[in-house]
Amino acid sequence: MGSPMAMHLLKAGYELSVFSRTREKASGLEAAGAGWRNSPAELAETSEVIFTMLGFPHDVESVLLGNKGVIAGAQRGSVVVDMTTSCPDLAVRLESKFKSQHVDSIDAPVSGGDIGARDGTLAIMCGGCKEGYLKTQPLLAIMGSDVQWFGPAGSGQRTKMSNQILIASTMMGTVESLLYAERAGLDLLKVIALLSRGAAGSWSLSKLGPRIAKEDWEPGFFIKHFIKDMEIALADAFRMGLKLKGLELAHEFYQEAKKRNLEEKGTQALYQVLQTMNKCL
Amino acid sequence: MGSPMAMHLLKAGYELSVFSRTREKASGLEAAGAGWRNSPAELAETSEVIFTMLGFPHDVESVLLGNKGVIAGAQRGSVVVDMTTSCPDLAVRLESKFKSQHVDSIDAPVSGGDIGARDGTLAIMCGGCKEGYLKTQPLLAIMGSDVQWFGPAGSGQRTKMSNQILIASTMMGTVESLLYAERAGLDLLKVIALLSRGAAGSWSLSKLGPRIAKEDWEPGFFIKHFIKDMEIALADAFRMGLKLKGLELAHEFYQEAKKRNLEEKGTQALYQVLQTMNKCL
Repeated sequence: MGSPMAMHLLKAGYELSVFSRTREKASGLEAAGAGWRNSPAELAETSEVIFTMLGFPHDVESVLLGNKGVIAGAQRGSVVVDMTTSCPDLAVRLESKFKSQHVDSIDAPVSGGDIGARDGTLAIMCGGCKEGYLKTQPLLAIMGSDVQWFGPAGSGQRTKMSNQILIASTMMGTVESLLYAERAGLDLLKVIALLSRGAAGSWSLSKLGPRIAKEDWEPGFFIKHFIKDMEIALADAFRMGLKLKGLELAHEFYQEAKKRNLEEKGTQALYQVLQTMNKCL
Repeated sequence: MGSPMAMHLLKAGYELSVFSRTREKASGLEAAGAGWRNSPAELAETSEVIFTMLGFPHDVESVLLGNKGVIAGAQRGSVVVDMTTSCPDLAVRLESKFKSQHVDSIDAPVSGGDIGARDGTLAIMCGGCKEGYLKTQPLLAIMGSDVQWFGPAGSGQRTKMSNQILIASTMMGTVESLLYAERAGLDLLKVIALLSRGAAGSWSLSKLGPRIAKEDWEPGFFIKHFIKDMEIALADAFRMGLKLKGLELAHEFYQEAKKRNLEEKGTQALYQVLQTMNKCL
């Protein structure tokens, strides 16, 4: 997702340098005029605002804090914005590490997927010190259409986790509802259309329900990424002393999907898990 | 809900007779010109189409099949339409009982609540023989704005159950998400607004989320009725050989709400259950 997001900044006239662990991923940006840097540290040396968009929390840790990481080059007064969906407590740790170098650190995970990234219509949920946020807000507003600050470091990540916790159980409801309807011999598309207009309506039902009915399991949003997000949320909830049984249940079922090699499928492929588990009964 | 629904029929110019176990409930209809009958049997004797809107499946059984029930008076060629949310297998049984008297039986549960009943904007999900359905469809279209036939007897009830199964887990997700957000110190209304616009969006979040944020537990939809619906769905799923763990989990939590005397509150009061359960951790 990083490439289309950065492209919006270039097109808006900003000077852009890029680094990617896989250089091919930056080739479009380089062709469009972005300067290549050989490491995150090198990139940070010449940047006022540094954005990262990575896969997993351990990637965030190594790209920002590791050897030749952003922290090794970040200039006093610059701002680091991590847009990866990652751990709230890592966001807190990043802030304290960067603060000692007089660098602000903002957590700014997104929702809206590939399409949102391409169209510049992402929702961007920000946490961190307000001054740092305000410095980067004009840039974030180029990449997203719904940019908001939710509070101190970690608050962006926690808003994103609230989003993922909600989706987890809504997906359970969606697949259980449609599996029941299927077994009842109902016309799934007709049921989805009627239910979508009422109190059972949701984005999951309207957007993923028809894919389930057509047995289209392609991502959308990868199961492997959703599992990562649920595990971050479960760990953070545990740290707060919260037991979220709905989330735990959805996580178990998505783990089952992983065991069945559905990791690279879209989250709606959870339907296949319930379908096969209920064949043996 | 029966009274505002029947009122639409009166206002549309149809001749209407009424019976209610609690006569006061029909006083508005009587004042508007409906004729009173002393039993369901008596009502059926003079009616071409008989609508029932009751509380629980055992009420449906007694009003339709009991002593002085509809079946004791129903005329050859008439149609019985049960609009109660009730058991799919009872709908099948009703059809066979009435068929022997050459009476069609349609199951037609609704969604849209008090407001939908008052405004004539209910969704009405129908099952039963298509001819019987078509005879009643013009009348149903007066009470609802989204009237559809889903298949043989029980299919209306099963479409409604698909709706309730979906709501059950979506409510779990909504309360877990907001409880996590609250513990994280986030501004709930701000989180709800942002999440509602994206992939976590749902009717439950948009409509009930703000009530949770304002600690407004009034119904909407009563917890006691929702528990009834979930139990019908669980029993029907069990009969089909389906194990719906998300639904089971939501049912457990709503049972817990009942134990805490929240039966007469709205479904969003599930939030209180999770909130207090997570205080002890």
